[in-house]
Amino acid sequence: MEFSSKLIEKAVNEIAQLPGIGKRTALRLVLHLLKQPKEQTGFLAQALTTMREDIKYCENCHNISDNAVCEICSNKNRNHQVVCVVEDIRDVMAIENTGQFRGVYHVLGGKISPIDGVGPSQLKIATLVEKVKEGKISEVIFALSSTMEGDTTNFYIYKQIADAAIIISTIARGIAVGDELEYADEVTLGRSILQRVPFEKSFKSN
Amino acid sequence: MEFSSKLIEKAVNEIAQLPGIGKRTALRLVLHLLKQPKEQTGFLAQALTTMREDIKYCENCHNISDNAVCEICSNKNRNHQVVCVVEDIRDVMAIENTGQFRGVYHVLGGKISPIDGVGPSQLKIATLVEKVKEGKISEVIFALSSTMEGDTTNFYIYKQIADAAIIISTIARGIAVGDELEYADEVTLGRSILQRVPFEKSFKSN
Repeated sequence: MEFSSKLIEKAVNEIAQLPGIGKRTALRLVLHLLKQPKEQTGFLAQALTTMREDIKYCENCHNISDNAVCEICSNKNRNHQVVCVVEDIRDVMAIENTGQFRGVYHVLGGKISPIDGVGPSQLKIATLVEKVKEGKISEVIFALSSTMEGDTTNFYIYKQIADAAIIISTIARGIAVGDELEYADEVTLGRSILQRVPFEKSFKSN
Repeated sequence: MEFSSKLIEKAVNEIAQLPGIGKRTALRLVLHLLKQPKEQTGFLAQALTTMREDIKYCENCHNISDNAVCEICSNKNRNHQVVCVVEDIRDVMAIENTGQFRGVYHVLGGKISPIDGVGPSQLKIATLVEKVKEGKISEVIFALSSTMEGDTTNFYIYKQIADAAIIISTIARGIAVGDELEYADEVTLGRSILQRVPFEKSFKSN
């Protein structure tokens, strides 16, 4: 792509480094910004810079937070003995949205994935193991994606905390609510039969 | 969507104002930036701000340019009597890529579209009409999209320059190279028959 302006070219190249955005899309975004008032680009640039510079991670659960300890970890009404292990802030948001979890989180910051060059040392696993060994936790709930990488991460952590006298659980895998049985894959369906629950439990919350 | 950090929320909201990007995608982009070195976000923000602040438009053809007159308009080897009317810089880039056009451009900056609130006065139509009336132009080529808005814009400009003693042409509409005839829509196919060209001309450039 040849641009008539170096400024445009530079902006397009920077935007095109973002995942899922190619040069054509980047050019479309740049042209959109040019049609908007100058302030909008200013606000966008400012928000990105401030976000990147000032971002903090909760020192307890490693979730993104504006304070040293996040709102969830500093909430005394939550059960700090039950820790839900998740991949990143999106999973925290998703679980919080359900309104079904009153414990706290531990955000790993990713999952073990040799293909992407992510090993256990890049994840916040050590602090979780430490918390468990300090005896402050009664239950660890794994809530990672049901993928090869998620399962590997689950198992890696499990091996390190298996002898602790705590409950180690994982979120239920099964037929999604609203799904037709005939379209479910056989692994999911098989697992949902093996891990069936008492009927009265199935419509109660908590 | 509830965020655990105001900084994240602000960045996501700003990004989500871009066309085609929703809040989920915006959050994905933000999390990506957080995993990259701080400099990358800095470069991105800087490139956007500089681009928006320092951008110039060629005073002759209104294309985006780093100088007062763009490279195409200041190129003496090009035919300044033949003016190709296009919508924006992307069309200039696309036509330049073909290597088939040696004239100059006139960039309207959009097309007439009442639905989007774009009227003729917001486009660079007056300067084109002026150029034609000054008698410096021998041919105007319309190269706008083949849509309702494109045709409206073509026709609006045509009415204002129709009495000038110049050639007014429009790019050929027809079956795209590589297309199967049976899948072509009937309007395009019909037009390509009506506007058939001598066979020898069909494989010669210029």
